[in-house]
Amino acid sequence: MELIELNAPYLLFVGDAPDLLMAKTAKGVAHWRPERCLAQLRYPESPVDLGLPDMDVASAAAAGAKTLVLGLAPFGASLPQRWIDTCVEALAHGMDVASGLHIRLASIPAIVDAAARYGRRILDVRNPPATLPCGTGLPRSGKRLLTVGTDCCVGKMFTALAIQAEMAARKLPTSFRPTGQTGILIEGYGVSVDAVVADFISGAVELLAPANAPEHWDIIEGQGSLFHPAYAGVSLGLLHGAQADVLVVCHEAGRSQMDGMEGYPIQPMEQVIATNLAMARLTNPKVRLGGIALNTSRLSEADALAAIDELAQRLGVVVVDPVRTGVAPLVDAILAGETA
Amino acid sequence: MELIELNAPYLLFVGDAPDLLMAKTAKGVAHWRPERCLAQLRYPESPVDLGLPDMDVASAAAAGAKTLVLGLAPFGASLPQRWIDTCVEALAHGMDVASGLHIRLASIPAIVDAAARYGRRILDVRNPPATLPCGTGLPRSGKRLLTVGTDCCVGKMFTALAIQAEMAARKLPTSFRPTGQTGILIEGYGVSVDAVVADFISGAVELLAPANAPEHWDIIEGQGSLFHPAYAGVSLGLLHGAQADVLVVCHEAGRSQMDGMEGYPIQPMEQVIATNLAMARLTNPKVRLGGIALNTSRLSEADALAAIDELAQRLGVVVVDPVRTGVAPLVDAILAGETA
Repeated sequence: MELIELNAPYLLFVGDAPDLLMAKTAKGVAHWRPERCLAQLRYPESPVDLGLPDMDVASAAAAGAKTLVLGLAPFGASLPQRWIDTCVEALAHGMDVASGLHIRLASIPAIVDAAARYGRRILDVRNPPATLPCGTGLPRSGKRLLTVGTDCCVGKMFTALAIQAEMAARKLPTSFRPTGQTGILIEGYGVSVDAVVADFISGAVELLAPANAPEHWDIIEGQGSLFHPAYAGVSLGLLHGAQADVLVVCHEAGRSQMDGMEGYPIQPMEQVIATNLAMARLTNPKVRLGGIALNTSRLSEADALAAIDELAQRLGVVVVDPVRTGVAPLVDAILAGETA
Repeated sequence: MELIELNAPYLLFVGDAPDLLMAKTAKGVAHWRPERCLAQLRYPESPVDLGLPDMDVASAAAAGAKTLVLGLAPFGASLPQRWIDTCVEALAHGMDVASGLHIRLASIPAIVDAAARYGRRILDVRNPPATLPCGTGLPRSGKRLLTVGTDCCVGKMFTALAIQAEMAARKLPTSFRPTGQTGILIEGYGVSVDAVVADFISGAVELLAPANAPEHWDIIEGQGSLFHPAYAGVSLGLLHGAQADVLVVCHEAGRSQMDGMEGYPIQPMEQVIATNLAMARLTNPKVRLGGIALNTSRLSEADALAAIDELAQRLGVVVVDPVRTGVAPLVDAILAGETA
C-alpha cells in the first residue's frame, strides 16, 4: 500500500497558460514549496511568470530536475500535441511526469510508450493507490488537525498549508497531508480521497496520516462539506479517518448558496461547527474546535475586518483570514488549547 | 450510465456447498424471487437443497435459463477449476454468468475467453457502472424508504425486502433497490454502492432510485452505519442520495459492540435515530422515522417478544422482527404516517 510520491526538484510546466489563474496549481507549488522547484517551462507566448528561472527540458534535466509537473488544465477535452511532445521529451531526458489533470497521462499512448522506453514514471495524482486498507478507527499517536468547510472551494487547502507553515516557522514538528490533486503536487505526496473506492475513504486517510510522535502535528486538507448533497460521504469518511484533535472550519464570507447546488443554502456556522464536532467524536472523543478561517477575498478591507470581528464575537472563537490576517492567532489558540 | 441488469430465469449455482449457510445468497435469491429461478445446479456431493428442480447446464439451457448465478464463496483465494468449467459450459450454452464474489469472473482468462467466444456477458455485480453522475440533491417525485443500521450485518437488506414484499402484497406500486451484491443478485438489478468511487456515492443512489410516480415506493437497501468508523462515508452518501421520506432503523438485539471494530460500542438507539434523521434532512427535510426492525435471532421467543416490547415502549414507535413477527405492523405505521 503505497501513496503517490513525486521526486524533487520540479520543472513546473506553464506551457501556453494565458494568465496566472490558469496556472494556479503551478503557482501554488512555487509559492508553498519553492525549495522543491528548480525552474519553469513556458512556451514563448505565455506571459505567466512564477518567479522561477526559465528552462527548457534539456537544461532543466542537466540542472537536476527530477519531475515535470503539469498543474494546469488545457482548454478542450484532450491534451494538446505540443504538451504531449514536452512530456515525451521530459521522459526521454530521464524525468518523471506528474499531472493533476482529469485527462490521465496513462491514457495517452505516446506518453505511456515513452515512459516504458525510458524507464520513467507517469504520476497521475488523481488516481488513488491500487490497494488501500479499510479504516480501523483505532487510536493512534500524534496530533492531527483537519480543515473542514461550509462548502467546496472555500479555502481548506490554503488554510491547512498556512497553518502547517506557521507551525513549521515555530519549529514545531509538523506535516501537511494533502487529499486533493493540487495539494499532492505541492507536497509531492498524498492521496486524492474523492477518487478512492467508497469503502476505503477513512482507511486511505489513516494511511495518509499514520501514527506519529506524540508532539507531531499532521495538518490534513479537508474536502467538500458534511452539508454538500453530492460529496458529504467523502467529507465524513475523511473526518472519521483523520481522528482529528482539532477542527478548523473554513468559509467564504458572503457566500450564501452552495456552489452549483440549486436549493442548498450555506448552513449557519453554529450548525456546521456542531455537526462536524458531533460526527468527529466517533473516532476522537476529545476533538475540539480550533477556530474559523474566513476567506474574505470578495470583501473590502474594512468589510473583511468587520466580518471577522462579527463572527469572532458571535461565536467566541478565533477567526482569521489566512490571506489577509495570517493564521498566527489561530495557531496561538490551537496551541493554547493543548494545555488548557 | 447503465446499472447492472441480469436476465431471468436463473440457474442457481450451488456447486459443492456443504450447507445452506455457505449457499445463503443462492438461498436468498430462491426465497425472495422464486419467479426468477428455474433450477439449481448441485455437484453430486452437495446436500444443499434450495427447493428448486436439479438441472445440469445443458438441460437448464434447453429449458430457457438465461443466467448462471454464482452466489456462494469458495474456500481459498481462487475459483476451483470445476467451478470455472461450469461457468465456461454455461457460456457455451448461451447463458450469461453473474457473480457476487470478491474474485472477479473478469479476472479468470478461461471465463473471459468463453464469454467473448460465445458472445455472452460476465456480470460481476460488485463492480460499479463505468460512469456515474455526481449527486444533484434535487427533489424528485415518488416515495422512498431507506433501511439504516446500528452496524453492518444487522438485517438492512432483509428488512427492505420484507417491506417491499409486504407493500407488493397490498398491491402498492413498489420496487426494491439493492445496493449490495446479494440484493443485486436477488433483484437482478442494482449498484454496489460501497464499490463506487467516493465522489459518486450519492449520485449512484439517485440513479438507482430515480424519480417515479408520486404513489410509488422505492425501498432502498442501506449499507453500514453512520457510526461505523470505516464505512460511515458510504452510509452518509447513501442517506443523501436516497432522499428518503421514511427511515427504518435496523439493529440486532443483544449486539453491544460493532462487529470487528475494537473499541466501538453500538450507540444508543435514540442517538442512532436522531443522527440519521438530522443528517437525512439535508436532502429531504420531511424525512421521518417509520419504525425499528429488530433482529432477535439470538434470543428465545419469550426474550425476543420482551425485547421488542421494551424498545417499542421506550421509543414510542413500532418495532418488529421481520422474521419473527413480520413487517405488517411496520408497513401499517408507515402508511398511516403518509396521511398523518
